[in-house]
Amino acid sequence: MIVVMRIDSSEEQGAAVIERIESFGLRGEVIHGEQRKVIAVLGQVFPDLRDELATMVGVDQVLRVSRPYKLASREVREGDTVVDLPYGVSIGNGRPVVMAGPCAIESEEQLRETAAQVKQAGAHILRGGAFKPRTSPYSFHGLGLEALEMLQRAGSEYQLPVITELLSERDVDVVTEHSDVLQIGARNMQNFVLLSEAGKTGKPVMLKRGLSATIEEWLLSAEYILTQGNRDVILCERGVRTFETATRNTLDLNAVALVKRLSHLPVVVDPSHGTGHWYLVRPMATAGLAVGADGLMIEVHPDPDRALSDGAQSLTPEHFDELMQEASALGRAIGRPLAERPRAAA
Amino acid sequence: MIVVMRIDSSEEQGAAVIERIESFGLRGEVIHGEQRKVIAVLGQVFPDLRDELATMVGVDQVLRVSRPYKLASREVREGDTVVDLPYGVSIGNGRPVVMAGPCAIESEEQLRETAAQVKQAGAHILRGGAFKPRTSPYSFHGLGLEALEMLQRAGSEYQLPVITELLSERDVDVVTEHSDVLQIGARNMQNFVLLSEAGKTGKPVMLKRGLSATIEEWLLSAEYILTQGNRDVILCERGVRTFETATRNTLDLNAVALVKRLSHLPVVVDPSHGTGHWYLVRPMATAGLAVGADGLMIEVHPDPDRALSDGAQSLTPEHFDELMQEASALGRAIGRPLAERPRAAA
Amino acid sequence: MIVVMRIDSSEEQGAAVIERIESFGLRGEVIHGEQRKVIAVLGQVFPDLRDELATMVGVDQVLRVSRPYKLASREVREGDTVVDLPYGVSIGNGRPVVMAGPCAIESEEQLRETAAQVKQAGAHILRGGAFKPRTSPYSFHGLGLEALEMLQRAGSEYQLPVITELLSERDVDVVTEHSDVLQIGARNMQNFVLLSEAGKTGKPVMLKRGLSATIEEWLLSAEYILTQGNRDVILCERGVRTFETATRNTLDLNAVALVKRLSHLPVVVDPSHGTGHWYLVRPMATAGLAVGADGLMIEVHPDPDRALSDGAQSLTPEHFDELMQEASALGRAIGRPLAERPRAAA
Amino acid sequence: MIVVMRIDSSEEQGAAVIERIESFGLRGEVIHGEQRKVIAVLGQVFPDLRDELATMVGVDQVLRVSRPYKLASREVREGDTVVDLPYGVSIGNGRPVVMAGPCAIESEEQLRETAAQVKQAGAHILRGGAFKPRTSPYSFHGLGLEALEMLQRAGSEYQLPVITELLSERDVDVVTEHSDVLQIGARNMQNFVLLSEAGKTGKPVMLKRGLSATIEEWLLSAEYILTQGNRDVILCERGVRTFETATRNTLDLNAVALVKRLSHLPVVVDPSHGTGHWYLVRPMATAGLAVGADGLMIEVHPDPDRALSDGAQSLTPEHFDELMQEASALGRAIGRPLAERPRAAA
Repeated sequence: MIVVMRIDSSEEQGAAVIERIESFGLRGEVIHGEQRKVIAVLGQVFPDLRDELATMVGVDQVLRVSRPYKLASREVREGDTVVDLPYGVSIGNGRPVVMAGPCAIESEEQLRETAAQVKQAGAHILRGGAFKPRTSPYSFHGLGLEALEMLQRAGSEYQLPVITELLSERDVDVVTEHSDVLQIGARNMQNFVLLSEAGKTGKPVMLKRGLSATIEEWLLSAEYILTQGNRDVILCERGVRTFETATRNTLDLNAVALVKRLSHLPVVVDPSHGTGHWYLVRPMATAGLAVGADGLMIEVHPDPDRALSDGAQSLTPEHFDELMQEASALGRAIGRPLAERPRAAA
Repeated sequence: MIVVMRIDSSEEQGAAVIERIESFGLRGEVIHGEQRKVIAVLGQVFPDLRDELATMVGVDQVLRVSRPYKLASREVREGDTVVDLPYGVSIGNGRPVVMAGPCAIESEEQLRETAAQVKQAGAHILRGGAFKPRTSPYSFHGLGLEALEMLQRAGSEYQLPVITELLSERDVDVVTEHSDVLQIGARNMQNFVLLSEAGKTGKPVMLKRGLSATIEEWLLSAEYILTQGNRDVILCERGVRTFETATRNTLDLNAVALVKRLSHLPVVVDPSHGTGHWYLVRPMATAGLAVGADGLMIEVHPDPDRALSDGAQSLTPEHFDELMQEASALGRAIGRPLAERPRAAA
Repeated sequence: MIVVMRIDSSEEQGAAVIERIESFGLRGEVIHGEQRKVIAVLGQVFPDLRDELATMVGVDQVLRVSRPYKLASREVREGDTVVDLPYGVSIGNGRPVVMAGPCAIESEEQLRETAAQVKQAGAHILRGGAFKPRTSPYSFHGLGLEALEMLQRAGSEYQLPVITELLSERDVDVVTEHSDVLQIGARNMQNFVLLSEAGKTGKPVMLKRGLSATIEEWLLSAEYILTQGNRDVILCERGVRTFETATRNTLDLNAVALVKRLSHLPVVVDPSHGTGHWYLVRPMATAGLAVGADGLMIEVHPDPDRALSDGAQSLTPEHFDELMQEASALGRAIGRPLAERPRAAA
Repeated sequence: MIVVMRIDSSEEQGAAVIERIESFGLRGEVIHGEQRKVIAVLGQVFPDLRDELATMVGVDQVLRVSRPYKLASREVREGDTVVDLPYGVSIGNGRPVVMAGPCAIESEEQLRETAAQVKQAGAHILRGGAFKPRTSPYSFHGLGLEALEMLQRAGSEYQLPVITELLSERDVDVVTEHSDVLQIGARNMQNFVLLSEAGKTGKPVMLKRGLSATIEEWLLSAEYILTQGNRDVILCERGVRTFETATRNTLDLNAVALVKRLSHLPVVVDPSHGTGHWYLVRPMATAGLAVGADGLMIEVHPDPDRALSDGAQSLTPEHFDELMQEASALGRAIGRPLAERPRAAA
């Protein structure tokens, strides 16, 4: 941490800053610049120290030198995190996986039909929403427990690991019981209690980036899960909010490339939410693979026009099939072929 | 709702849209423009219909005509909502109130000292954080239940209604028991389960705007509380996230003026979080009153340099006193004098 | 400037950084932290150095210590800049001024009628657009030279200084000849050639903030004018672009308060563009005064429904009159009464 | 255009709206909804009409049905625009091209060295800045005319078409004389006078998207060039400004996919400015190709550490060579192989 003093700061003010730094068992080293003085803070700093020093009289600003996340950082852990799931599916080992299924589970038929189709097309993981966070209280909120059971049955029948969103602390047990991966949605990225509870389950957790979360905040939220001793964290970029209104969100692939550099955690791209339009899903999915994503999450619905949630961004099974073929070709071309198909349980 | 067809759409595609509209018991009326056809949807539309129609072949876009929130809208309820609190304090009756206190409650002394000072300076409500949502798992997270009890005692001793943040479903009962107003923080604005639970308590709820929430989303989140039969909802603008990094957030006073026009709910302004710098709090607080806010929420700390949370944006008691004097003068000048001081309980 | 080295950087990499620093006649001082090394750059750094160092092998990031603008900064110049205009009108002396008039000048009658009304209501400066930057090539672009002449005549007749936008290098002479203040619009805030040309005229220049310009970029653009030896620069906050779509822009009053602290230049607030809705202009104008603005810029049109440009945000003369009364009362209450009315020329 | 009336609007207010519509020779058709009335405007509407109607008493909002750009729209012109350049290079015919070269031209040697290297690696067009728009007046602003001549000589020597930025109206002739494509930078995207002047030259124009420009505004700016009778417009996505600060900009590939759908104009991606970090350029370049871009623009510098401008985002020749190999492989895999190498002039 570097404390930048004001040009007009006094000797006493500088001394007071050093005294405060030393009161925490740290050391302050003064550097005299041409115009002003800066004070380097040496030792193991803690996050709240910045605020403390920033408000002292004579201080202009406090600059951070180290990144505030630790367990999520490549500086701490060498190698890539690989998350292992049932049926021999792994995320993060260099071969991308595809998660696919309906936004919301609407019925056993709808789910089974979709599962059969995405399995056939080569998907590795089945997604399906049981509890849906909706902006309006008047929208469809999912079938709840019933849908969880359908999802577990479909995963078992089609031999696909399953993923679904955990929306509330009260559902931690039941979602953990029925799902192979717990998804934390964008709106809950800073629901810190929920993050900790999800971490405690020991189940793999996929953490979506918040609508206006910086990359640093996203990794700090991952840190909430990791500090519970749960190392199986998957990140998911699903679009951020900008001034642009022609697309639902702005899928930030810069972030994917950068996070792969900053962190050892696998990163999945969700072009369905990231664009909001089914016709943009295929190009952005392949772009996601090109940029180095460890997986894709795609909404597929047998009849998107009649979907109870997010129909506008869901692919038909036919379009999904095309996407899988293009993704396969591209993966081979860039030396990152799609993962092998899930294996039947022994 | 208005369905805009593509210029090159066919007769059959238009007919299919009308058929779909009629399948919901609604009526579709076609208007033939110069270049293209639009179809007005008549009857009581529901929110998910938009997505359904938007994906149909031949449809260019679907425009909404009505606002999606109802109970929060001035179109539904005449007059302003007034929320009554203990000690004769009311929010929303045209005379602004001031909520003040430490960001986080750190000790009985710190809280009592602050309470005495803000009461003396003319504050109407005592704020203090017991459960603190922090970006980093390594930051101070509040004293929890112990702090709730301190807050309740301080409110009782200094005869001030109290407000504190509800962070988790598991704390609903205990926070409801100790606080006069439940605060929902910006990061939980779309934690829909928490909103519903808060609504069910029947206690007044103050709902902060999310960091990147549109005004419409904010009012829809209020709707989650209102649909539980709880009419005592207070909105709080606390700054949104923009590209600007020189201030912590961008306090959006446009939103305050607009929400007062769209909704009957009272609106409070939080210039402490809205700016992130103590020296911007006073000017933005008075600007908030000038724009028509029903109240202010101000962080005050007896020794901001040593605050465990958000010291950089906390006022000293002296600065708070100055702010109250300026706010008083301004309130009188614009015909909206500050509310009377809390009354001793009978 | 502070160079932060990577945790895994080598001795040689650090030495290379210092060598590079010294090659510019500067000095590098190494501080050894617990985990990593940082190197302070001592001497008169220049802006492009940051990029040079940031790309060197072993460097993690380069932090800036000083602000990059100089002539615009309070650290360089004590006291406030006061810009003097004809008819005894001054901007920046603690008493706010009001600029008012039509968005676009449409006819001699429209302009004279508006000028008479705003003068009567107490405005200090007459605004009117002759060259209009419009998003679409199919919109009305102003009457050009003819409008400039009308503006000059109206200013003379009603004894008001006038301001109009300079849109193009080719118009510098003619606008300078006809207007007392040259306005640089938001879209041209980083049209650096135009800024320099405007600076060279020696006429007062009002520089609007760009739609997504940071405060630092805004002050650096002011610096382009100031470095031409022209000290009469006025800043104008007119709203920034955010994700919110319910208002045309988000008027950033935080920025006004902060710029008054960082810079000695006067700051004017434009709530007409800053909100885009006439019914939000009055509350945001008074909020602008409360926050410390040195002036307001308000669009007034005798018949906003029939305005050829920006009718939706223009006030009727009646509404403008109400605004002036409220602004007067508020100015007196906060010890910053509106400026005296323009004086007849001797 | 659809006029939505307020729920509480009167018959007279509706009649006044229709009268106003008819006064422009258009027709208003009333649709009575359950709660409110909407009025469809039939006939050839003009952009400013929206504002006129939006301010009328009783009107809630005015919704647009058609897109405001015409010549740039696929609805107007079938097929893709293909821009032909010297040496047989074409942009927009399905085979992507690569533009490469230094951000700023610093010397004849630097430029010739870079040109030789990028030609060798397979680039199709040589870029190089002669006039540089810089945020700070104290930064390097390019060598001007001298650099233009160097660029023309290098293009001729290495048989590559050249592109450089047009920064000012005063330079239109000289840049047109020396360059095969005129680049309009992001900061000038709404410098409407410059757009028109560039359009009049008849030379191909590459229009970069503004830092916070919506897709609609971008296409309207293209329209300013197209309405001059110049059909050779190339769009360039170079990153938008968001809240994220870890990358210099947020490269918006959603926009590329969407613009290819909305418009017939070719779209180029600039991952150098779009990310700001050389190590993100390669992944984002390949992502740009995957999403369907017609070309890439890449900054290459023989010694990025010593670049006078934007060194942090420039590739070394070695890294550029790797990028070209990966781009080639990816292009073949997705059926869009890179364009053939430039042909020697006959």
